[in-house]
Amino acid sequence: MAQFINKRENVVTEAIDGLLAVSGGSLVRLDGYPHIRVVLRGDWDKSQVALVSGGGSGHEPAHAGFVGKGMLTAAVCGDVFASPSVDAVLAGILAVTGPAGCLLIVKNYTGDRLNFGLAAERARAFGLNVNMVIVGDDVALPDLPQARGVAGTLFVHKIAGALAQAGADLETVTAAARRVIAGAKSIGMSLDTCTVPGSPKEDRIPAGMAELGLGIHGEAGVEQIAFVNAKTAMGSVVSKLAAAIGDGPHVALINNLGGTSALEMSVLTHELIASSIGNRISHVVGPAPMMTSLDMQGFSISLYPADEADIKALGAPVSMAAWPGLSAVKPIRIEMLPDGLTPITPQPSNHQETRDFLINCCKVLISAEEDLNALDAKSGDGDTGSTLAGAARALISAIDRLPLSDHTQLYRAIGQELSQTMGGSSGVLLAIFFAAAGDAASSGLPMADSLKAGLARMQEIGGAHLGDRTMVDALSPALDALEKGFLPAAEAARAGANLTATMLKAKAGRAAYINAKQLEGHIDPGAEAVARLFEHLAA
Amino acid sequence: MAQFINKRENVVTEAIDGLLAVSGGSLVRLDGYPHIRVVLRGDWDKSQVALVSGGGSGHEPAHAGFVGKGMLTAAVCGDVFASPSVDAVLAGILAVTGPAGCLLIVKNYTGDRLNFGLAAERARAFGLNVNMVIVGDDVALPDLPQARGVAGTLFVHKIAGALAQAGADLETVTAAARRVIAGAKSIGMSLDTCTVPGSPKEDRIPAGMAELGLGIHGEAGVEQIAFVNAKTAMGSVVSKLAAAIGDGPHVALINNLGGTSALEMSVLTHELIASSIGNRISHVVGPAPMMTSLDMQGFSISLYPADEADIKALGAPVSMAAWPGLSAVKPIRIEMLPDGLTPITPQPSNHQETRDFLINCCKVLISAEEDLNALDAKSGDGDTGSTLAGAARALISAIDRLPLSDHTQLYRAIGQELSQTMGGSSGVLLAIFFAAAGDAASSGLPMADSLKAGLARMQEIGGAHLGDRTMVDALSPALDALEKGFLPAAEAARAGANLTATMLKAKAGRAAYINAKQLEGHIDPGAEAVARLFEHLAA
Repeated sequence: MAQFINKRENVVTEAIDGLLAVSGGSLVRLDGYPHIRVVLRGDWDKSQVALVSGGGSGHEPAHAGFVGKGMLTAAVCGDVFASPSVDAVLAGILAVTGPAGCLLIVKNYTGDRLNFGLAAERARAFGLNVNMVIVGDDVALPDLPQARGVAGTLFVHKIAGALAQAGADLETVTAAARRVIAGAKSIGMSLDTCTVPGSPKEDRIPAGMAELGLGIHGEAGVEQIAFVNAKTAMGSVVSKLAAAIGDGPHVALINNLGGTSALEMSVLTHELIASSIGNRISHVVGPAPMMTSLDMQGFSISLYPADEADIKALGAPVSMAAWPGLSAVKPIRIEMLPDGLTPITPQPSNHQETRDFLINCCKVLISAEEDLNALDAKSGDGDTGSTLAGAARALISAIDRLPLSDHTQLYRAIGQELSQTMGGSSGVLLAIFFAAAGDAASSGLPMADSLKAGLARMQEIGGAHLGDRTMVDALSPALDALEKGFLPAAEAARAGANLTATMLKAKAGRAAYINAKQLEGHIDPGAEAVARLFEHLAA
Repeated sequence: MAQFINKRENVVTEAIDGLLAVSGGSLVRLDGYPHIRVVLRGDWDKSQVALVSGGGSGHEPAHAGFVGKGMLTAAVCGDVFASPSVDAVLAGILAVTGPAGCLLIVKNYTGDRLNFGLAAERARAFGLNVNMVIVGDDVALPDLPQARGVAGTLFVHKIAGALAQAGADLETVTAAARRVIAGAKSIGMSLDTCTVPGSPKEDRIPAGMAELGLGIHGEAGVEQIAFVNAKTAMGSVVSKLAAAIGDGPHVALINNLGGTSALEMSVLTHELIASSIGNRISHVVGPAPMMTSLDMQGFSISLYPADEADIKALGAPVSMAAWPGLSAVKPIRIEMLPDGLTPITPQPSNHQETRDFLINCCKVLISAEEDLNALDAKSGDGDTGSTLAGAARALISAIDRLPLSDHTQLYRAIGQELSQTMGGSSGVLLAIFFAAAGDAASSGLPMADSLKAGLARMQEIGGAHLGDRTMVDALSPALDALEKGFLPAAEAARAGANLTATMLKAKAGRAAYINAKQLEGHIDPGAEAVARLFEHLAA
């Protein structure tokens, strides 16, 4: 499967360089490429306890993305899913450790334990004060004496990071890290495997199945279970976690394993809060990609029974965008719908002249039904005539409900009727035309200017310009000529309509998808309708 | 393709509920489910200009994830890739618009233009002051009169949002939005299509190809081009953008279309900065998923020639985690590797008794090579004997370089030699054993206690406990008995080693993967080596 990388062997250094280039100078690296890939805080002065983590790459933003004020001091980056060397870890420790000492935060994988462990010994031989904690938060295998370290590691980074930033000493920071490790429990679930750079994608999970209890290196989950939906998936995860946690409120870290859409992550968040342990979740971190497994379409939930001081530490501000912050879980607040969704119903009124005018216009459109359909068949689906005739019939039948004696209200009411009866884009556009004309009329503009204001708004919203082969090509010149009377307006409308037969590339509306040959010699049906209306009025 | 959703028709409301539940009360919604899905700021008092955006869902975190102080006031959410209804938009406008008025920020898609446009008209009929801007930042089709609205919309949200938050009036906010729209240029590229909930995944992009110039609704890109690697992919994107932008510095918004791994996004970021326009990019937003197309494995780059005021607006703090912030692009800072990576070379010294002792121990291991290999063949790959014998031979050949008269230095030096010659886990573990023993000796502990400290550290790092069928089962009882002399130590080591033949489930090391029947009656080779060493010392 293709990926946005160059050479597999450069993927980690190039990714680190990308991260550094846009860090605004807050991150730097050691001069050890390609074997020593250590990212450090650019502002580090060794005055506080240093926190060093790392491990294989492929878990971004972990760990380099969490380097910064309030979290990690340095991250040591191995190849994808491979532990960094002892020398690389040692370089990281030596680069950041001052008199306050250093805490190594290591995920429980053999390679990381050994390489970080030996690097710590070598650093101690230099007289440095180095502690090491091993995170094993995965509850997928409850009987395994050495649980894997997965996304719960972020709790350790954040809480230890906040304490170190606040000036706590190494023993205090280490004790806090151990306490967090004892309490953090995680489990992951996935619908697909991940794509390891340079390797073919493993097709391990059959359709209809999901893996539960997976690590973060593409290794198989502890079990394959039937996948039904988001609710049952979260239910499986929650039942494993419920068996592993104690009483009291917990913070949940909702981790995207990399390739799950934000939409799915929000649905999963909803299901977690709605689950049997939802009422025990006081706060949430995420949903966000924090400890990923490349592009895996999966998620993990980590729980930690945070006390008041932990909550403060988890909520403390940090400098990096990758940490999504801590949010309290609260009941959803729902506001009443505002008044005004039901359209203002105008007071019906009669005005015989207007009534006759309107009905006549409608009749023109009704009688043009077949001609307009035939024109539309050249460029569309042949229903323009029927759509307009249908709207005209509806308008006639609504005539007694209209405010015929009040032009402003009448424009708006016609727009309202058309938007309800015509449907589709043209109904909305005509509704906009009449609504905007009504607004203009209410501020005292004469009819021609009101209609021009309506046209301008309709063009703004619909995007059609003169020459785009739409009704605008007839309507716009007609309205320009209208102050001189109906006859000049009708002549202008007809000229404009006829011109559309020579426009060989429609630029708006559905005819934009038709090729030029098919359009040649045929008038746009909307423009034809406008021309016929004005010709009737001029007659 | 399976997704973490429940029923397709509930995916948007469930996702919104997930977002709201973990918003800490900062977001609320209108009571209009299922048709009216409007997310608003929970702290909104209508005292400033309201910003309303939205459109189809499937672009998360856009738009509801950007509702909050300093960005949007409300987001109106349609079905996946479908415009929200006029009523839904109107509800959003009415709910948030006060005397300061409201700006609608609409991406240029027909449905959104029409529905937001008509809703604006209906809101104006209530006397509300509503402006609307249409974002068309996509440069995929340079000749298209109506460019699509894609991720550049975020520039509008953020700059207009900062101005509104600062109390600017509607005309000022609208003018700024129009200015940003005129300057923002975007283009996207993808290696795969997205998965629309409830629909089969379209398999449109052949292997080895990528789509350039795509929208955000799964529609096909403007062209399919050969995909070579991240550098050429970014090159294609950059050449389209370079043709569209003017001179001067630009801000780049690096958007993950949803399913691209964070590792890839950082590689792409590196390539953007290294590209022909890299030196014109003064600041960056991201990389992050901001305007996604569900789970699409793709990215988009948006450029905007921000002036000083824009930079301030883009950098202004906001309340939501989805906005990744603005970072200045700076040259990467590289720090020198710390001193100390080359292990401290001890001053060689002689001490005949220690020399003889060490050489004898080594000879014991060399003579045990075949026996230990045979034992290892029962549970591993049959090389424990050769590994230990090889290390022993190397140690003998290094004997003149060792600080034989200084126990602390000698322990450390042995550890160093073993880590270099043995390789693998066992080399690292023995190096840790001797390094930690050296630390203990340096603080004045007697030999037995120093070795016990080494064992404790080795167990902490390696994770092996008594009874796990490892060398610990012989070494631990031997060291406990060592203060009484070599004979009791040897007896204890032998008893412990023999016991491993009855341990039917190894819990650490490679033997953990072997089934019980194969282990029964065979002593662990590491434990046997320890027993033979102590038996030799006691003889």
